[in-house]
Amino acid sequence: MERITAKYFIETPYDVEVAAAVLAGEQSSGTFVSVPGETEELKQRFAARVESIEHLETVDHPAIPGAVSGKKEYHRANVEVSWSIENFGYNLPVLVSTLQGNLYEITQFTGLKLMELEVPASYGDHFKGPRFGIEGCRKLTGVNDRPLIGTIIKPSLGMTPQQTAELVKTLAEAGIDFIKDDELLSSAANSPFDERVDVIMKVINEHADKTGKKVMYAFNISDEMDSMLKHYEKIVLSGGTCAMVSLNSVGLSGVKKICDQGELAIHGHRNGWGMLNRHPLLGIEFPAYQKLWRLAGVDQIHVNGIQNKFWESDDSVVRSIEACLKPMLGGYSVLPVVSSGQWGGQAPETYRRTKTIDLLYMAGGGIMAHPDGPAGGVVALQQAWQAAVDGLTVEQAAKQYAAFGKSVEKFGKKK
Amino acid sequence: MERITAKYFIETPYDVEVAAAVLAGEQSSGTFVSVPGETEELKQRFAARVESIEHLETVDHPAIPGAVSGKKEYHRANVEVSWSIENFGYNLPVLVSTLQGNLYEITQFTGLKLMELEVPASYGDHFKGPRFGIEGCRKLTGVNDRPLIGTIIKPSLGMTPQQTAELVKTLAEAGIDFIKDDELLSSAANSPFDERVDVIMKVINEHADKTGKKVMYAFNISDEMDSMLKHYEKIVLSGGTCAMVSLNSVGLSGVKKICDQGELAIHGHRNGWGMLNRHPLLGIEFPAYQKLWRLAGVDQIHVNGIQNKFWESDDSVVRSIEACLKPMLGGYSVLPVVSSGQWGGQAPETYRRTKTIDLLYMAGGGIMAHPDGPAGGVVALQQAWQAAVDGLTVEQAAKQYAAFGKSVEKFGKKK
Repeated sequence: MERITAKYFIETPYDVEVAAAVLAGEQSSGTFVSVPGETEELKQRFAARVESIEHLETVDHPAIPGAVSGKKEYHRANVEVSWSIENFGYNLPVLVSTLQGNLYEITQFTGLKLMELEVPASYGDHFKGPRFGIEGCRKLTGVNDRPLIGTIIKPSLGMTPQQTAELVKTLAEAGIDFIKDDELLSSAANSPFDERVDVIMKVINEHADKTGKKVMYAFNISDEMDSMLKHYEKIVLSGGTCAMVSLNSVGLSGVKKICDQGELAIHGHRNGWGMLNRHPLLGIEFPAYQKLWRLAGVDQIHVNGIQNKFWESDDSVVRSIEACLKPMLGGYSVLPVVSSGQWGGQAPETYRRTKTIDLLYMAGGGIMAHPDGPAGGVVALQQAWQAAVDGLTVEQAAKQYAAFGKSVEKFGKKK
Repeated sequence: MERITAKYFIETPYDVEVAAAVLAGEQSSGTFVSVPGETEELKQRFAARVESIEHLETVDHPAIPGAVSGKKEYHRANVEVSWSIENFGYNLPVLVSTLQGNLYEITQFTGLKLMELEVPASYGDHFKGPRFGIEGCRKLTGVNDRPLIGTIIKPSLGMTPQQTAELVKTLAEAGIDFIKDDELLSSAANSPFDERVDVIMKVINEHADKTGKKVMYAFNISDEMDSMLKHYEKIVLSGGTCAMVSLNSVGLSGVKKICDQGELAIHGHRNGWGMLNRHPLLGIEFPAYQKLWRLAGVDQIHVNGIQNKFWESDDSVVRSIEACLKPMLGGYSVLPVVSSGQWGGQAPETYRRTKTIDLLYMAGGGIMAHPDGPAGGVVALQQAWQAAVDGLTVEQAAKQYAAFGKSVEKFGKKK
């Protein structure tokens, strides 16, 4: 019988072996006394199995305060646990409950993080995964030999549909590949969803008719289920190619239902991610997280960016990009979305470390506030990536390319 | 214009005032340079507003490691922020993205927890909230003068539908009010959903025909959207009264869609909660969390239990029960589900501290492993609650009530 394997980074005041056994027990049988009917045979078939334990350092202070008192040593370890897929079949929410369920609440742990996840081959038969992925998003935008260049409409809130459409026109003429709503905008008082789609898609369709290039616009449809489906349909009927969902806010069942419609590329925004990840010994790491969303069918997923404005290290961002680009079940291609404080100056380092152009590279102020306006901003980003692939440094690129040089002038002096 | 107010507990290496302004800025405008079109008027209308700041202690070590280097003081504070509901209208996922979004990733914070949430009166017009709540669940089970007594089918996995139905029969005859699937069970290989509903509801319906008492059974429907709706319908057609969803695994949009069906009481399981809450300065506190799910329409929500087997303190559990019982928007009644290591011995303390019998009181081993079998276990729990309301101690209750006395014998000696 196929099994699902999960890797955890744990910290425990108990013997690591004991804690691992508790982990496995809680996530299969789970009661504090033996109960009638729980035979050895059933345990064999359905119990979680501890596959491996790698002992790490012992520390004298628990990673998460307030857990168990009177202990002086906290042992860290990598622990691998597996379950028969008989336990949950092809049910993502129950898989998540099994992987994460009550584990974070068990006193045997003073730290627990889900690091990785392996699903068996039959998951590839059952879950369709991303319908567009990297190749599909390239086809929809006609961009093949460099990252997709994208931006976010700012301010997040307050612009009328008409004002937004004017900005979209400017950006389309500037050569942008992708534009997204801010995740805080959905159908605000002064920018009703349908009206916004109408005026924006008019601009995008006219631009496409004229130039052959259709800008991909990710309308934020995050909402309750029926509204999401209605808004999705509105985008399809208006000739749009993409919808955005806030993964953590909408949740797995809602997001999968949207992905299953199959007509739009789905832009997965991970806002709220810090809550799940910022502590090194609590929550989930991105390599496991992104797999769940690929199974659900998300085509694009946020990975933060090199030298970002948030707390995350470059190493972590690189690991996230690599996780997205690693094939899963022979496919399930997902486009990593690089964003947060990006203006092109990070392109050389991003490329040096990941050696990929399969990215959606997002800049906000980096495009909009370029000295030559948005057109200059888009060109500067394209130049930055050409320079990155050619192995130039930021300084070399600034000399060679005028528009990018102006970006360096304006944005490179910060900090 | 109505506003939504959120309270945060923060820690920052910067001035608290500066950090609070960043919080407000990130969750309304959110880019690192001023951009064209962002007028003062728009800022006034849509910007988040810092309503109050309460300075707390300063510490010399950040709550969350790895954030900003070179700082020696970390200031803690309670901060209240508000947004015009114009920003998101009546959209729960976008509300969540606004309340929690990128906040946890901002370097200005070395700790951030969403503590409370106030929504305006018009939310009461828009969101129907729990269709059953406390009163509805009492009506469905016919239990009026004490907590509903419930149990969980164990082992979680491995039993056939027929074995499960036999256990349900035993429990029904024992006088149980409520039974639930374990959250790890959905439609496992050897217990297909429809078959399980058929045999269990046959037992429950027959018992109801005979005695007039219909046991509420919470079938776990957590799954992708279409399967949840199909399974929901199956329960309705079979005469069931309740369905269970794993709130965090299914997500807000999926859960609301299920609640909106309106025919079954929805049992909200909070597994995964520790990940969102265990760290004192990361995530969300239960008073805010439970409001989101009440808006979505959940009728019953888990609150852990006094002297539970997890890490949570009794104080925290009491606060959670009180939060559930506090009316919201003049209604939105939700039944707190007490569970985890409960056997009746905690009833006196639970009542002493909360003064309520509006609870669904769940015991697993505490019922099933009672010396007189499940019937003894159910009676013992009823006795424990009678004793609790009468102000008896565990010792007094054990003397007065034989069945409960046996529980004390068996479960009271632990630790």
